[in-house]
Amino acid sequence: MSTLSVVGIGPGSDEHTTPAALKAISEADVVVGYSTYVKLVKHLIEGKEVFRTGMTEEIERARFAVTRSRAGAKVAVISSGDAGVYGMASLVLQVLSEEGWHRGEPPELRLVPGMTALNSCGSLLGAPLGHDFCAISLSDLLTPWPVIARRLEAAASADFVIALYNPASGRRTRQIVEAQQIIARHRPGTTPVGLVKSAYRKMEHVVLTDLDHILEYEIGMLTTVIVGSTNTFVHEGYMVTPRGYTNKYTWDGAALPGQTPGRSLVLGKESV
Amino acid sequence: MSTLSVVGIGPGSDEHTTPAALKAISEADVVVGYSTYVKLVKHLIEGKEVFRTGMTEEIERARFAVTRSRAGAKVAVISSGDAGVYGMASLVLQVLSEEGWHRGEPPELRLVPGMTALNSCGSLLGAPLGHDFCAISLSDLLTPWPVIARRLEAAASADFVIALYNPASGRRTRQIVEAQQIIARHRPGTTPVGLVKSAYRKMEHVVLTDLDHILEYEIGMLTTVIVGSTNTFVHEGYMVTPRGYTNKYTWDGAALPGQTPGRSLVLGKESV
Repeated sequence: MSTLSVVGIGPGSDEHTTPAALKAISEADVVVGYSTYVKLVKHLIEGKEVFRTGMTEEIERARFAVTRSRAGAKVAVISSGDAGVYGMASLVLQVLSEEGWHRGEPPELRLVPGMTALNSCGSLLGAPLGHDFCAISLSDLLTPWPVIARRLEAAASADFVIALYNPASGRRTRQIVEAQQIIARHRPGTTPVGLVKSAYRKMEHVVLTDLDHILEYEIGMLTTVIVGSTNTFVHEGYMVTPRGYTNKYTWDGAALPGQTPGRSLVLGKESV
Repeated sequence: MSTLSVVGIGPGSDEHTTPAALKAISEADVVVGYSTYVKLVKHLIEGKEVFRTGMTEEIERARFAVTRSRAGAKVAVISSGDAGVYGMASLVLQVLSEEGWHRGEPPELRLVPGMTALNSCGSLLGAPLGHDFCAISLSDLLTPWPVIARRLEAAASADFVIALYNPASGRRTRQIVEAQQIIARHRPGTTPVGLVKSAYRKMEHVVLTDLDHILEYEIGMLTTVIVGSTNTFVHEGYMVTPRGYTNKYTWDGAALPGQTPGRSLVLGKESV
């Protein structure tokens, strides 16, 4: 049976790509991807037919993959990170829906998860995602800016750790400035912020700074920005967002007065 | 040099565990983890010293790991998913900070990222995370409920896809009811919701339902709940959150009138 695999390869170094992703790529006859991502797996796809196109040509790639797999090929569409997170998986499903594809018909659809930038970048910064977080793409190429601004406002006001995907590009530089301003209305300028470029790739670059100073650094297409919550602190260059153990326990693991392990936190302090 | 690795093993089947995670576990002399997670890797840790404890004993595990690695052992602390996401990484860093550890001193700290439940569960549902999303833990064991409720309200009102971690346990059943009510004030009852239990493990169970009906299903400790945004739709049992291509392009990939590829979306419609 023909197959259509949509595969997340993780950050792009082999040590962080799962066996399931490798298998899906190796079993494919045809590999489809954005040129930059295809380069990351070029050692895995020798001898295969490759269809690579640039940015803004995602619909073309998705349609090619659907057409070829419906005609009988084994196709793997690759995304960096997780193909489900701002990646090709939703677009492929939209094209399948548009073309009236039904489950049980060829191709067999396989969605292979990967590690998204949240996780890869987070690990290079320490543990910024130790408590509730959200991901917001600052790209307004497909999303109206007011929708993005509203999400920034909501996330900042409710004290989420905030990961900004696609923060800027050569042409798109205004959004990260506005995002910084929106978040700064809700958090101190000393809030820790991590900037991670090309996590686990050759040009990896990690900066730990704070909300007041992020605009002094280079932020581009390959950067993920992680803004701490009001509880995030820095120790020895690591960003740490506590889960909340000290709300309930001493460092010896004993429950604080009035608290019971396994039961709801008894209120009295509002911090997380 | 002694090492302290904090390792995310992904959902818990070998095909989704990265080579970096396997390597960190195989190089350890001592493996530390929650009993359920230790079982998931038992074939990888034969012959090693194992320190496993139950829920609510996280501080004890973190302190054991820090103490043993400072004394010279190679220790791996394992979490399911990503150790940085509601996992052991932030607690280990807190204990290191508490004990006055500095970078350059033993142990050498290694943070090994993994695929979190967002990604593994998302892939089993389709592509629910195709646009902005957030993760909220419904556990109020360490976080005051008003903080959680405020985040639910913010995420629901700004139309994030919402992943609920730790939605319920045997004793903790009220939070998912309140969460459903908060979200339902902002989204139609027909909003798609996925319930994924034990993703990629033996007891895997996937339910696709909608916001009006989630409380009719079993939701427990091992369930992750993913609530769609107002743009999420279902095709053939797959949840799909569009990135927004149809705001700008036809299905032939041509830009709609007034729109330019690579440039900001020209407003006129407010949907994503």
